Amino acid sequence: MDTLAASASITKLAILGLGLIGGSLALAAKQRGIVQHVSAWGRRTQNLQTGLDRGVIDSFSLDLADVIVDADVIVVATPVLMAEQLLVDLFAKHNTQAIVTDVGSTKGNLLRAVQQGLGYVPPNLVLGHPIAGSESSGIDAVKVDLYERHRVILTPTSDTDAAHLACIQSLWSGVGAEVICMDVEQHDHVLAATSHLPHMLAYSLVDTLSSMEEEQEVFRFAAGGFRDFTRIAKSHPTMWHDIAMANKSALLKSLDDFVKHLLTVRECIDQGDSERLIALFSHVA
Amino acid sequence: MDTLAASASITKLAILGLGLIGGSLALAAKQRGIVQHVSAWGRRTQNLQTGLDRGVIDSFSLDLADVIVDADVIVVATPVLMAEQLLVDLFAKHNTQAIVTDVGSTKGNLLRAVQQGLGYVPPNLVLGHPIAGSESSGIDAVKVDLYERHRVILTPTSDTDAAHLACIQSLWSGVGAEVICMDVEQHDHVLAATSHLPHMLAYSLVDTLSSMEEEQEVFRFAAGGFRDFTRIAKSHPTMWHDIAMANKSALLKSLDDFVKHLLTVRECIDQGDSERLIALFSHVA
Repeated sequence: MDTLAASASITKLAILGLGLIGGSLALAAKQRGIVQHVSAWGRRTQNLQTGLDRGVIDSFSLDLADVIVDADVIVVATPVLMAEQLLVDLFAKHNTQAIVTDVGSTKGNLLRAVQQGLGYVPPNLVLGHPIAGSESSGIDAVKVDLYERHRVILTPTSDTDAAHLACIQSLWSGVGAEVICMDVEQHDHVLAATSHLPHMLAYSLVDTLSSMEEEQEVFRFAAGGFRDFTRIAKSHPTMWHDIAMANKSALLKSLDDFVKHLLTVRECIDQGDSERLIALFSHVA
Repeated sequence: MDTLAASASITKLAILGLGLIGGSLALAAKQRGIVQHVSAWGRRTQNLQTGLDRGVIDSFSLDLADVIVDADVIVVATPVLMAEQLLVDLFAKHNTQAIVTDVGSTKGNLLRAVQQGLGYVPPNLVLGHPIAGSESSGIDAVKVDLYERHRVILTPTSDTDAAHLACIQSLWSGVGAEVICMDVEQHDHVLAATSHLPHMLAYSLVDTLSSMEEEQEVFRFAAGGFRDFTRIAKSHPTMWHDIAMANKSALLKSLDDFVKHLLTVRECIDQGDSERLIALFSHVA
């Protein structure tokens, strides 16, 4: 394992769920010579065939067992709710000895699913989350440099084997990312505030404007600030539904904190409290 | 006036308040030969001197009367609350015959100030708002192409002289903008939703995160969506305070609409209403 960790030389990498995140990792790891063979599992042949045609993967199957056999590393890259059962199955049904990692935006739901489904946390499970992506998703959006100069958060537990952790760190470093470790709870709290909450705000803003009588005018005259929101609000609805549900408690707390701050701004405007409003806008209140 | 309108040939343009918006208009109008001489008024010599040194303006004075004498067109480019009194003074104190326009993000407060201060709306007043700008402000941020392919909204009233309106349209078209007319109330309503509200959300989000215990971690791991918000939240605090206060009623209405939509999202997450949440995220609810 030490040699594997140091060189990040992986003979067979299995990607479960071939979209932007898994596909970009596969392509980058192959191009950089970190991985010799990538096999992918998914539910739609067409998507997997596209990945094969474009050289993102080397083989695929709709049968999970075929894909994970002899894999050194398995990357679960499905939406986060689907990943819950898949992680449990990998250990409970398939008894995998590979290092299992994932790329989901939420970590607590996965750890809980594994703890509840297995009764323990396998030492060869290294949960992770690359802070990368875009409003685009799917195999068509794959980018070989997606992770360069981006951060990847790994969330090992006290049960995680150090050599397995080092292997996954090395895989991500190898494709250009900066790897940081934090605990699962902190990850979900920080990401709720910095990523999940902003997405809820963007979706809600576009919903608000869509419901206005002047809808056409509104979208026609949208200025700079608003364009950023509309771009974010084009993110994949089901994927973000899953994230919101999976990180429910941290997200609701962030949402409530935000509404409190926004209502303070509202109060300052309503009451003409200029001093406090300027302090809030200066982020010194 | 017809000839002036058609050619947008202005002998003397007076800019009151020399920042990004006024300075960029002056520079573009000079470079394109639309304006022969630009004179600027402001409260700080250093700022005006910088504008002169950089060729943005041709002359300046701290005395308003000096700057507006013989001007064909006067552009009020101060923050929107200061513009209220300035517009009244131009007609009441200085009895100007020039075409007076402005560049403020709010229009209703200016029209009300003029109506209350003068008892009428001068035919040579053409209120306007270029939908351009950035988080940067001030003379140092001046860009000669700031208005190219940007929209400018003019808000004439039934009292506005058509030839004067045509002259201001021609000035903006001449620097590359697309000019649209709408009424004052519609302008303030649309801009509240598409620009002023998004700024309140960005400020509030950064405030929320600044108040978290993990503040340092939070800003370190901020992902894509969040970076857009922090950029918007760097906008000038006093300028946005003025805009919020000046467009209070339309902004509060937009804020309340938004909170209603956000709380619906919150309820869907809390109650696990997946179908409705996905519909909201797809903007079809």
